[in-house]
Amino acid sequence: MLYHVRMDVVIPSDMDAETLAKLKADEKALSQQLQAEGKWRHIWRLAGEYANFSIFDVESHEALHDIMMSLPLYPYMQVDVTPLLRHPSSIRSDDS
Amino acid sequence: MLYHVRMDVVIPSDMDAETLAKLKADEKALSQQLQAEGKWRHIWRLAGEYANFSIFDVESHEALHDIMMSLPLYPYMQVDVTPLLRHPSSIRSDDS
Amino acid sequence: MLYHVRMDVVIPSDMDAETLAKLKADEKALSQQLQAEGKWRHIWRLAGEYANFSIFDVESHEALHDIMMSLPLYPYMQVDVTPLLRHPSSIRSDDS
Amino acid sequence: MLYHVRMDVVIPSDMDAETLAKLKADEKALSQQLQAEGKWRHIWRLAGEYANFSIFDVESHEALHDIMMSLPLYPYMQVDVTPLLRHPSSIRSDDS
Amino acid sequence: MLYHVRMDVVIPSDMDAETLAKLKADEKALSQQLQAEGKWRHIWRLAGEYANFSIFDVESHEALHDIMMSLPLYPYMQVDVTPLLRHPSSIRSDDS
Amino acid sequence: MLYHVRMDVVIPSDMDAETLAKLKADEKALSQQLQAEGKWRHIWRLAGEYANFSIFDVESHEALHDIMMSLPLYPYMQVDVTPLLRHPSSIRSDDS
Amino acid sequence: MLYHVRMDVVIPSDMDAETLAKLKADEKALSQQLQAEGKWRHIWRLAGEYANFSIFDVESHEALHDIMMSLPLYPYMQVDVTPLLRHPSSIRSDDS
Amino acid sequence: MLYHVRMDVVIPSDMDAETLAKLKADEKALSQQLQAEGKWRHIWRLAGEYANFSIFDVESHEALHDIMMSLPLYPYMQVDVTPLLRHPSSIRSDDS
Amino acid sequence: MLYHVRMDVVIPSDMDAETLAKLKADEKALSQQLQAEGKWRHIWRLAGEYANFSIFDVESHEALHDIMMSLPLYPYMQVDVTPLLRHPSSIRSDDS
Amino acid sequence: MLYHVRMDVVIPSDMDAETLAKLKADEKALSQQLQAEGKWRHIWRLAGEYANFSIFDVESHEALHDIMMSLPLYPYMQVDVTPLLRHPSSIRSDDS
Repeated sequence: MLYHVRMDVVIPSDMDAETLAKLKADEKALSQQLQAEGKWRHIWRLAGEYANFSIFDVESHEALHDIMMSLPLYPYMQVDVTPLLRHPSSIRSDDS
Repeated sequence: MLYHVRMDVVIPSDMDAETLAKLKADEKALSQQLQAEGKWRHIWRLAGEYANFSIFDVESHEALHDIMMSLPLYPYMQVDVTPLLRHPSSIRSDDS
Repeated sequence: MLYHVRMDVVIPSDMDAETLAKLKADEKALSQQLQAEGKWRHIWRLAGEYANFSIFDVESHEALHDIMMSLPLYPYMQVDVTPLLRHPSSIRSDDS
Repeated sequence: MLYHVRMDVVIPSDMDAETLAKLKADEKALSQQLQAEGKWRHIWRLAGEYANFSIFDVESHEALHDIMMSLPLYPYMQVDVTPLLRHPSSIRSDDS
Repeated sequence: MLYHVRMDVVIPSDMDAETLAKLKADEKALSQQLQAEGKWRHIWRLAGEYANFSIFDVESHEALHDIMMSLPLYPYMQVDVTPLLRHPSSIRSDDS
Repeated sequence: MLYHVRMDVVIPSDMDAETLAKLKADEKALSQQLQAEGKWRHIWRLAGEYANFSIFDVESHEALHDIMMSLPLYPYMQVDVTPLLRHPSSIRSDDS
Repeated sequence: MLYHVRMDVVIPSDMDAETLAKLKADEKALSQQLQAEGKWRHIWRLAGEYANFSIFDVESHEALHDIMMSLPLYPYMQVDVTPLLRHPSSIRSDDS
Repeated sequence: MLYHVRMDVVIPSDMDAETLAKLKADEKALSQQLQAEGKWRHIWRLAGEYANFSIFDVESHEALHDIMMSLPLYPYMQVDVTPLLRHPSSIRSDDS
Repeated sequence: MLYHVRMDVVIPSDMDAETLAKLKADEKALSQQLQAEGKWRHIWRLAGEYANFSIFDVESHEALHDIMMSLPLYPYMQVDVTPLLRHPSSIRSDDS
Repeated sequence: MLYHVRMDVVIPSDMDAETLAKLKADEKALSQQLQAEGKWRHIWRLAGEYANFSIFDVESHEALHDIMMSLPLYPYMQVDVTPLLRHPSSIRSDDS
């Protein structure tokens, strides 16, 4: 099932560079693994902002929740979740 | 280039069914044509709401604008446009 | 899977009483049928407001969407959907 | 009487892990005790967020207030309280 | 139990004067009856606005709801309900 | 003259218990003195929140301001002030 | 006592010109009378908007309310009232 | 030309009293100087809040900006600027 | 002096096409005249929305107000005005 | 292509003057370089606020994003991006 998630990242200004770099690297690694597994179907950046729109394709709300909680940057995120479904006008077989 | 567009449709309660059906049919036809052309890359429904998230892939702001203005349901829409870009973590070759 | 839905009903002031009564009766009948089927697990009224919080237990976003679209009062509703999951503190076996 | 409460938890980023773990454990223990007593009737997690929707069944506003103030995580919560009542469409005998 | 209710009244501009006068008179009569019964403990006007803050003292959410639904002006109101309780600093015996 | 004031108290999480206790005790003492003088007519707690609705009865805006500024907890408050007046439907002689 | 009032005027698009002209003329006449009496101390237009900021100097909330309710354009206004007081930095003798 | 400015002051809770007293004294001195020069025409306090509405009469946006940036308390302010103009109903010769 | 103005146009759905076309033509003619005079320095469309950002260069708030009130589409606009000034980083001689 | 960007700068109150001066100098140097290159077409200050409206003319969302991320003050900014296009009423040849 599809979930649209907006993630806005707010990093405390007193976080040291090294810690931040490690967090970002871990976040990227996990994201790419989940994408490879087909769970994290899309991730796009909002131009000019430290935020992304993502489309997750997972089997349940729990699965989505576990993924979000596992993200290294999660403690610094504001998250907005919207359940999506296939649009009757969609011609893409793979967009459900 | 990618644009994330949220469209919330608000139909006046006094619109007759026939007019509405015609509008919806025309909207669907145009949407599917644009999807076939690769301009309207994704369209998803927000579960429980008369609204959609769409991803457009067009060459300019003008192109996006012309598409939106051409939508039969446009006069009944509230629209929110966000320019997107490829995320450095994305592993999909086709998500830029 | 569980969905929390807030429904705020706004009836046009020029709707005649008979039409409204019919809509309400149909809405109640459908709601009770869905409750009997276990899909509409809870429905509570917000004290003092023409609104309700409902908990749906259905197998997919599509199922939720179809139910919402089938509600006679849907055209007069503002809807807010939130996917829920079992809380790790919950002691109820039937709250997932 | 029923109360719908949304609790959004915001933990200061400089809180040490041990303190947080203790707070969470105490919160869970108290919550489960109150659920066992029938006061905390439902608790669900919002998918992807550090927040919950809860339904309390207590005899008065004071009772609700005392429970909220007793929660170990209360100082880190944003709380929104809505009094609920049985919906005339509800077929559940135990939802009032 | 105490409830704080804000009522903002929005009258359609095309309502004829006679209908409005009748609604207002009925509203006043009902309000004064409920005040006499001790259920509608306080009603104050917001200076400069067509709105009031009221304090209700009734035995349950249902009682509050029934009162609100019975108000002639209810269809033209936006309502915000907040459950209140006696403040530990209050010296008034009758403010619980 | 009557003023409706909402006070939301937000205590910094790093304030030590002793300082907070002293602030609360001073706040309570001052509040009760002002209530005894008839200036602070009502104070109610919002169930589940660290906030109150209060009704002040003082002779001028200045008097209200001086009281608010004198409150020990004032630096930790978000305040919303609304001038009230007697409602034409009110049957209470003492509610103006 | 001073009150800061923001008035945003929203005229129904189907109001005929003559009715509107009459309303505006009556509004202007009443406003100028109240200004002459010293009750309506200042009225300024918000550049580019059909709205004004006004400062009233009247003896009570009731007086302010009566003035607002007497304004011909009141039914078409959104109003926001803020009680003001002399600022300790003010050097103007007449600004209290 | 006239500008309506709302200034909300938020002082960090860890600022020492002496520093704050110095800031306030400097702010008052500068404000009174600007008032004497006729640039800061009005300043009123919002009853119960650490905020003011001010009316500036200066020759350009730049002049307003320079004044705001020169205020000792500026770093602790949230500011909202609205250009004003003489209202056609105003009878005051000096309110343009 | 420069003013940034956002104009959101909301056309009533029951306006006939001919009236709307006439309004738009008049609006365009007036806008182009003001641009030729250098008063309306820039006008850009928000991609996908029936709205524009404009930069006006006029000698006073009154001048801006008169222009806005003269726009044929003004009655159907929501307007937000922000006074601008030359940025110290700007290298453009003509941007003040 | 044109982008309208609003940047609100919020500097932590505990940042030392020297660090801030360096950040501002670097920001100005980079901004002026980008203006010279024609990418940063306009930058205006909002009168009275530490914020600017800017118009960027770059070839893609990525280009805009890279610029924003390269700004020394970016970590202290709230950013709002709106894609713009030439308005059909515009008479300026260089405003597309």
